[in-house]
Amino acid sequence: MQHHFPSYLSQVIASLKKLPGVGQKSAERYAFDLLSWPKEELARFQKTLQTLAEDAQSCAECGCLVEGQRCSFCTEERRASGSLCITTSAKEVFFLEETGEYRGLYHVLGSKLSPLDGVTPEDLGIQQIKKRIEDYQIQEVILAIDSTVEGDATSLLLKEELHTCGPLKVSRLAFGLPMGSSLEFVDGNTLALALSGRKALI
Amino acid sequence: MQHHFPSYLSQVIASLKKLPGVGQKSAERYAFDLLSWPKEELARFQKTLQTLAEDAQSCAECGCLVEGQRCSFCTEERRASGSLCITTSAKEVFFLEETGEYRGLYHVLGSKLSPLDGVTPEDLGIQQIKKRIEDYQIQEVILAIDSTVEGDATSLLLKEELHTCGPLKVSRLAFGLPMGSSLEFVDGNTLALALSGRKALI
Repeated sequence: MQHHFPSYLSQVIASLKKLPGVGQKSAERYAFDLLSWPKEELARFQKTLQTLAEDAQSCAECGCLVEGQRCSFCTEERRASGSLCITTSAKEVFFLEETGEYRGLYHVLGSKLSPLDGVTPEDLGIQQIKKRIEDYQIQEVILAIDSTVEGDATSLLLKEELHTCGPLKVSRLAFGLPMGSSLEFVDGNTLALALSGRKALI
Repeated sequence: MQHHFPSYLSQVIASLKKLPGVGQKSAERYAFDLLSWPKEELARFQKTLQTLAEDAQSCAECGCLVEGQRCSFCTEERRASGSLCITTSAKEVFFLEETGEYRGLYHVLGSKLSPLDGVTPEDLGIQQIKKRIEDYQIQEVILAIDSTVEGDATSLLLKEELHTCGPLKVSRLAFGLPMGSSLEFVDGNTLALALSGRKALI
């Protein structure tokens, strides 16, 4: 007879395995570690999950994560910037903010175009984007969308749709070599993009 | 101004970072994934943590994890086996059980000998081990303790303490090459142990 974990452990392992990249072994490791946590620490973790379920919500206008009543990305200052950055998910907004290089508005699509998964052009809320471009007199749209098949399709669709929005610069994030990476370890597709997007120095 | 995560996210990230081997980036990844979980899934995870805090307890006799009222490792059948396996933590008992190679009693030390961390020989409950050896007429003790400085010190101490317990076989798990590993990737210490523990074939 195989000896099974007590149910209080196997249940927590089952939940932990749902996290991205966490398999049986990691989940077991986490679960046994949780066993050794002080009660108050475990209670705090539990409380944070409850708060997450209760408090987390998206801004109805831009789709960014909202804390409290108002969206901290839909400020007057950002509205006046004339720039709109379109991302696939709310997570990416934070990574872009961390760079400190951008101070305009954001728009979160929620998903990439993927007809096979049932995500059609209608699901991306392009009318809402067009309305925002008009309302805030946006002059530049930056597509911060990764280079996957779905990402490329989404970017292409947005480019064509936004073509009709009057004089508007639409750009996409640069693809190329990551900082500090060695050329020999970069994959062929990235290298091809880096080559075609080469910058003149002289 | 740096843009911070909403507090409901940063709190969950802070808790997740306490898990072993989880840094800021992994914790963020997990937290954003949790955001996309259905409410009932998140509630279930939360409930499992609560159950863990409430239900988890160790057997007063052997130190293994107990489910419900009685310890499933302290059975009459195991008591009659004449074997006692000593491990450092309750987790290791499950890994040993999984092998299906052992059907005797267990004894969980709870920690390894480590005077610098305040774990002295008195903290290991050796009297309790001796009492169990006598009570159940144990003929063989297996030390399932890893080969670290503390592990070696603990094994040595147990060997000397159990020396006085009448006719008793005391063995330690074999150290050597892991199954399927290539000799060139094994570290020198392991190779030295494998060499000194070599087995005669002819």
